[in-house]
Amino acid sequence: MSLNEFEIIDRYFKSLTGEAVGVTCGIGDDAAVIGLPTGMELVTSVDTLISGVHFQTDTDPYDIGFKSLAVNLSDIAAMAAEPRWVTLALTVPENNPAWLESFARGFADLAKRYSVSLIGGDLTRGPLSITVQILGTVPCGAAIKRSGAVPGDSIYVSGCLGGAGFALKVLNGECNDTEELSAECLTRLLRPIPRIELGAGLRGLASAVIDISDGLAVDLGHILRASSVGAVIELGKVPVCDALAQITDEDILWQTALCSGDDYELCFTLPVSNCRQLQRMEIEMDCSVTCIGRIVENEAIRWLQSDGSEYDLRCSGYRHF
Amino acid sequence: MSLNEFEIIDRYFKSLTGEAVGVTCGIGDDAAVIGLPTGMELVTSVDTLISGVHFQTDTDPYDIGFKSLAVNLSDIAAMAAEPRWVTLALTVPENNPAWLESFARGFADLAKRYSVSLIGGDLTRGPLSITVQILGTVPCGAAIKRSGAVPGDSIYVSGCLGGAGFALKVLNGECNDTEELSAECLTRLLRPIPRIELGAGLRGLASAVIDISDGLAVDLGHILRASSVGAVIELGKVPVCDALAQITDEDILWQTALCSGDDYELCFTLPVSNCRQLQRMEIEMDCSVTCIGRIVENEAIRWLQSDGSEYDLRCSGYRHF
Repeated sequence: MSLNEFEIIDRYFKSLTGEAVGVTCGIGDDAAVIGLPTGMELVTSVDTLISGVHFQTDTDPYDIGFKSLAVNLSDIAAMAAEPRWVTLALTVPENNPAWLESFARGFADLAKRYSVSLIGGDLTRGPLSITVQILGTVPCGAAIKRSGAVPGDSIYVSGCLGGAGFALKVLNGECNDTEELSAECLTRLLRPIPRIELGAGLRGLASAVIDISDGLAVDLGHILRASSVGAVIELGKVPVCDALAQITDEDILWQTALCSGDDYELCFTLPVSNCRQLQRMEIEMDCSVTCIGRIVENEAIRWLQSDGSEYDLRCSGYRHF
Repeated sequence: MSLNEFEIIDRYFKSLTGEAVGVTCGIGDDAAVIGLPTGMELVTSVDTLISGVHFQTDTDPYDIGFKSLAVNLSDIAAMAAEPRWVTLALTVPENNPAWLESFARGFADLAKRYSVSLIGGDLTRGPLSITVQILGTVPCGAAIKRSGAVPGDSIYVSGCLGGAGFALKVLNGECNDTEELSAECLTRLLRPIPRIELGAGLRGLASAVIDISDGLAVDLGHILRASSVGAVIELGKVPVCDALAQITDEDILWQTALCSGDDYELCFTLPVSNCRQLQRMEIEMDCSVTCIGRIVENEAIRWLQSDGSEYDLRCSGYRHF
């Protein structure tokens, strides 16, 4: 017998609400009620993933569940906040128990890793799409915006860039599928790890933070516009994912590393005086950080090659409209 | 020239953020940051409206914008909370400026009425769907759940029932479109007014509250299950919308009044000792409340006709799955 909406929520999603902290009223009422710890502000973000746009239609539902939460956690990381609670608005074309079970497992596995509890949602029938709203907390006044970068600040990125974009090129048949390197990139594309720990660690250190969802060129551009500054980036310092060594065409290499999205690394700026403290923090963390350039006065990004000449980067990124 | 995602947000939606109270960081960063007033808990709910499911594909975008917020405000009312902030995840098939402008106006008109400010969102391309996440506040411990009804409590509904369901029947050609009464019902269907004032007024008075989104039979059923009680309803006391007088078949009448959704009135229970205070409150409010029955021990709903015999209500409501 097929389950109705309420039974589906009970069976697959209520179990995701374990260890709810601060939740006075969770799933199953008209709305959830949560108490915020004293001295904390609420941080919230929402993202929608659409089948055929944000993921290929034949993507493993586990990966869809995982990634739909990951991209939202990444926004919380980019505010130097910590994720706490989440709501899920799920639209599915049919009642497919195997699909729902797998999706819920992917979502739950990542939620548990960061002790995020599901506090509400909506389940509707229609073309597959997932809207996740994440709620987090940050000590009052400690959130880091995009607008705080000043000339002289160092520019950093976490991890490596271009891995997710490379995997997408392989999936689309634009690059050859070679060896285990592309498998690693595929994991980066399908199950990105949000930089929660790094984000929270940047409180009091960084002047501006953003997560790289649309490619470094676009997302660093957001910091520059919000801060009314420019940037000089040394291409030789940009940490490009290992698999991209297979790309021999320099233009395709930089397109992949700097213009493709879905990396979900953090890009951030900080005063030079804080760099040493950042390096000390890096040692204790699960991800590397690399200084790739500096903030300057004039509002543009200059990409410098190792011989000092300027590289003319032309991004043709995805536009929804 | 067509606008891109960021320009669309700037032009149509940023203007909706006026009078933001408690917002440290609004639209335009990775996430919004908001401070909760001392002594308040956060109340949050999410609802998705899908084209062709929750509204007809040719619905005026103004009405879609209005209703997508209204149904969420109604959930806040049903927790006896007050709405404050909202995020909007909008998926549209194309960049149609006239559509976006009208949608945003409908959304904004209702938001302004309740001083709700838009603090974030996501704009994606795909089959038309709207997911709204509402954030509200309630004094700590004052939210009213579905689970507090006890035997002996009186059962009330606000306004009248069946108007939205009647309008839907007219739109679907199942009823005749007669006179201005059905126009009033159409307004109830397309632009439901959330009972925010009533909901907040019920604090300290009501033992359980729910909003009627799926029909009284279904939604009262949620209160009964959550509270482990039953109900006796006197059909003669149920406030049926005037337009339903046109329905001569008794079964169709009660199907429309009790089983059809989209009324967004409140159904609530309260101790008999609080009824007088409720009546005093009603005088100062913009909507009527009607006592329709009482909570009893055994877990079921009995619908009593004026001669004391039981009416056998058979709802065939909409099921997503």
